[in-house]
Amino acid sequence: MNLSGIIGYPITPFSDLIKGVDLEKLGIVIDILLDAKVDAIAALGSAGEAAYLTKFEWEQVAKYTVKYVDGKVPVVIGVAELTTEQAIERAKYAHAIGADMIMVSPFSYYKLNEAELFQHYESISNATPLPIMIYNNPATCGVDMSPKFMLTMVDGIKNACMIKESTGDIQRMHKIHKLSKGKVPFFNGCNHMALEALTAGASGWCTTAPCLIGDQPKQLFDAVKQGDKDKAQALFYQQYEFLEFIVTSGLAAAVKSGLSIQGKLDGEPRKPLLPLTKSAQKTLRNMLTELDCIKA
Amino acid sequence: MNLSGIIGYPITPFSDLIKGVDLEKLGIVIDILLDAKVDAIAALGSAGEAAYLTKFEWEQVAKYTVKYVDGKVPVVIGVAELTTEQAIERAKYAHAIGADMIMVSPFSYYKLNEAELFQHYESISNATPLPIMIYNNPATCGVDMSPKFMLTMVDGIKNACMIKESTGDIQRMHKIHKLSKGKVPFFNGCNHMALEALTAGASGWCTTAPCLIGDQPKQLFDAVKQGDKDKAQALFYQQYEFLEFIVTSGLAAAVKSGLSIQGKLDGEPRKPLLPLTKSAQKTLRNMLTELDCIKA
Amino acid sequence: MNLSGIIGYPITPFSDLIKGVDLEKLGIVIDILLDAKVDAIAALGSAGEAAYLTKFEWEQVAKYTVKYVDGKVPVVIGVAELTTEQAIERAKYAHAIGADMIMVSPFSYYKLNEAELFQHYESISNATPLPIMIYNNPATCGVDMSPKFMLTMVDGIKNACMIKESTGDIQRMHKIHKLSKGKVPFFNGCNHMALEALTAGASGWCTTAPCLIGDQPKQLFDAVKQGDKDKAQALFYQQYEFLEFIVTSGLAAAVKSGLSIQGKLDGEPRKPLLPLTKSAQKTLRNMLTELDCIKA
Amino acid sequence: MNLSGIIGYPITPFSDLIKGVDLEKLGIVIDILLDAKVDAIAALGSAGEAAYLTKFEWEQVAKYTVKYVDGKVPVVIGVAELTTEQAIERAKYAHAIGADMIMVSPFSYYKLNEAELFQHYESISNATPLPIMIYNNPATCGVDMSPKFMLTMVDGIKNACMIKESTGDIQRMHKIHKLSKGKVPFFNGCNHMALEALTAGASGWCTTAPCLIGDQPKQLFDAVKQGDKDKAQALFYQQYEFLEFIVTSGLAAAVKSGLSIQGKLDGEPRKPLLPLTKSAQKTLRNMLTELDCIKA
Repeated sequence: MNLSGIIGYPITPFSDLIKGVDLEKLGIVIDILLDAKVDAIAALGSAGEAAYLTKFEWEQVAKYTVKYVDGKVPVVIGVAELTTEQAIERAKYAHAIGADMIMVSPFSYYKLNEAELFQHYESISNATPLPIMIYNNPATCGVDMSPKFMLTMVDGIKNACMIKESTGDIQRMHKIHKLSKGKVPFFNGCNHMALEALTAGASGWCTTAPCLIGDQPKQLFDAVKQGDKDKAQALFYQQYEFLEFIVTSGLAAAVKSGLSIQGKLDGEPRKPLLPLTKSAQKTLRNMLTELDCIKA
Repeated sequence: MNLSGIIGYPITPFSDLIKGVDLEKLGIVIDILLDAKVDAIAALGSAGEAAYLTKFEWEQVAKYTVKYVDGKVPVVIGVAELTTEQAIERAKYAHAIGADMIMVSPFSYYKLNEAELFQHYESISNATPLPIMIYNNPATCGVDMSPKFMLTMVDGIKNACMIKESTGDIQRMHKIHKLSKGKVPFFNGCNHMALEALTAGASGWCTTAPCLIGDQPKQLFDAVKQGDKDKAQALFYQQYEFLEFIVTSGLAAAVKSGLSIQGKLDGEPRKPLLPLTKSAQKTLRNMLTELDCIKA
Repeated sequence: MNLSGIIGYPITPFSDLIKGVDLEKLGIVIDILLDAKVDAIAALGSAGEAAYLTKFEWEQVAKYTVKYVDGKVPVVIGVAELTTEQAIERAKYAHAIGADMIMVSPFSYYKLNEAELFQHYESISNATPLPIMIYNNPATCGVDMSPKFMLTMVDGIKNACMIKESTGDIQRMHKIHKLSKGKVPFFNGCNHMALEALTAGASGWCTTAPCLIGDQPKQLFDAVKQGDKDKAQALFYQQYEFLEFIVTSGLAAAVKSGLSIQGKLDGEPRKPLLPLTKSAQKTLRNMLTELDCIKA
Repeated sequence: MNLSGIIGYPITPFSDLIKGVDLEKLGIVIDILLDAKVDAIAALGSAGEAAYLTKFEWEQVAKYTVKYVDGKVPVVIGVAELTTEQAIERAKYAHAIGADMIMVSPFSYYKLNEAELFQHYESISNATPLPIMIYNNPATCGVDMSPKFMLTMVDGIKNACMIKESTGDIQRMHKIHKLSKGKVPFFNGCNHMALEALTAGASGWCTTAPCLIGDQPKQLFDAVKQGDKDKAQALFYQQYEFLEFIVTSGLAAAVKSGLSIQGKLDGEPRKPLLPLTKSAQKTLRNMLTELDCIKA
């Protein structure tokens, strides 16, 4: 599987009427991402509030996403379960419904050691033929995997074949590149480091930003790939404050508020997550206006 | 409710035959704690692998613990759910089955801000008459609550009345004591800081250590309270390496291995958690031997 | 040498008339410390602004302190030089003028590795017969030495015989105690952790606090030693905010402002250090008033 | 003053015969840097062991460097003194001997607050007409200045006009660029982040690497500026391990060992700094061989 470019992350809309996911609205979000020229769709990541869904809801979202995308671009499904058994179940489900890949992060209560992490990934790999993107995001998942260890897993675990790095430490990407002699694809998961991650050789950028700012991330990706350094820098700094804002505000809350500001979709994140404050909403509105992403 | 002393944390034994919790063995663990003269039992904490249980199992453990303890000592139930709704459900359940108190920690995926944390605790308080122990353990729960903020919650949220601090930073306890003018009880959740926490005014020590070393924690507690500083210091340093070991090895894995070494109970933690390595088991055996906790 | 109790740290008064140290005023400060019943005097520590003195001034202060104290209590001289050669010179000088001990910290520009640190301490030890207190204070000195490494130096370097620990991490003291089987004396250098450090077995407390609050630190030390836990706790919490304040405000600036508030001595720290702001001075005045350390 | 490109940092050779700096050898090092096509020379930085020199030696090096470079490229003089008074003296000296600019870092014992830092920089600015590069390197200097604060100083202090950022956090550069609307030039001081710093808009790269690997840093700079992204990435990754190695080994020790391996210059850093271990020397030899920087 040859994944590259912008991997777009939908948020998960909830229904006001019934308690649960609003699949129709999810379709709208997926359309927004496809219109933004994303190269793949990754359901059930941080932005998708996967950690806050019931198993039933999680399966609904996974299934609907694959069906709705309908092969237009590859679909990646996030798997971040606390027990290995649950993770295996979800991985199997992802395969059963026709997803193209799974992105596995070790969401943890106890800090897992490397033996525990290895067996977790290996058990999942043994349960599904799907390619696995190893996803390191200690800020949300509570455990930090070194480039060296992740490459050990890529070497030793059949389906583990790529890495998503979200620490925001550019040195991690240098290490992945050098230690793998450039052969293991890695993806950037730190929005406000996108310019440098791509410069350092990232194959793509995993981001929910296109939910709100259309193809501007894709333009940035293309400018870097084309070696148009001034354009790339200009595009990056244009988006920079917005990218940092959605990270520090919480991706799900920020994108949901943004979609509401744009008049595209209403809805809040699930508690304990709260919507943006009025003041943050105003900041976001100003940013979206400057990025020309609000209709006059 | 006047809680003080040693609050003992049972591990959760799993069954080899059926997939799930082994309640009979749980009874054995509770008896071990009661024999160790604990002043209260706290089910479904870190040591109890609460994060790795299904809702059904969680309820089984809660209910059985209350029933089995049968009023001999107070029972505290840990509530560490990702969504506010689930936490409310669990809190209600704890009340329904007759628990004396709940210990609530904000297990999190996204880093929660103070507004989110406050509404989480407040919503739980509004749903149950049970006293709430606010539990801060960023190492497992992913979010760090300052003494000042926790005291704001004690002030503003009806049932929030005590604090368990597990960061291992003694200054946090100084702040709780000073900012509350000594009026808000706090408990130590950092095993290898027990001597100093009690010296600094902690009302008690939350620990799973009595599962393996009997009433030695209780003896330490008593020595501090009686002002026998040499005895307290000697008791603490005697247990010190063991206390540090079970923390750094993972409480559930360490206690389960220890019980097996003692010939009391076999069983492993739930994956991705792994049992102690052979080498760590040997270290633990030596420690338990030195602490006179293995029958010849 | 059997050092224990309160090791008092004088500040270094500067002259308004000539550019340099005001030795007469230094005598006043030393008297204040002796009146506060300190068990030793440690010149040229952080509080003494040693890092900001010329070599000439440093020698003046060292010589005058030894002469002025005149054997009433032992005198420790701080040595925190950037090069090994300078440190050796200062250590020799301390011996020549009759100091009882040197306290050596590895003030550093480059982070020194353990081989570099070992040779630094060893070279100093080879150049003087004075006992050496190894002083770990990464916050000011830029390099952090583990308990294990410091004990390796105590084992392998002739005159290295005690440790001052200022990280504020109580676990460091546990490690020193356990790894040395209680045989290497250690001193607390973190003012607002004094109660717990002494409880954990520290031989003494290195502090500039007696410059402002008289024998209250000594009373705390005595209460802990006598096992009067309630009195010790009460004394500690009484001083706590003051102790934390002088650390976070900068010891030299805080003590100099305090002496001025008390009407005992005027003078500022050396630039780039600035005196306390008006607002901080007011806070300090209130604390000193509450501690009954300002004449009505 | 329009500084950009590669700012080369000479090491400071010491004499084996007399105790002090070997100026003749310093000339050799400067020639190596000029041959490496550096765009400026910065004497008395970290690589130059400025912190370990006597005042006399410091002045020798400053004076000789300006004289030897003789206007071929601009000369920057590093000023990192513990007291404001000493810093002013050095700044005046730099001007007197004809340096083009000073690079000022707040080497500190006590952590300086922003008021202290501001007065330090302002006092220096008032004492010399030389342009000032504000240099942030908390790892060696012990104090961390935020982009916002440094820009406040650029705004409010006459001669402060550019920034050198050495934290290795690419976000700092984003902040400098955005907050100053791209108007305040900033320089990269983190060798192994050079590619990304230049991509993010750094005007230049402050580095001692050309002492050992000739114009390869300059080639990297040119490739980035020309938008030849593949060449830039290839050049960067080629140098990457070497760049990381000299940082983690200590710049002065590493460069001195490297010059010796290359047969150009012998000599050790000043104690407590130690030369590279044999094993590290071997690693360095291999790196230099791969970079084609050792004559067969």
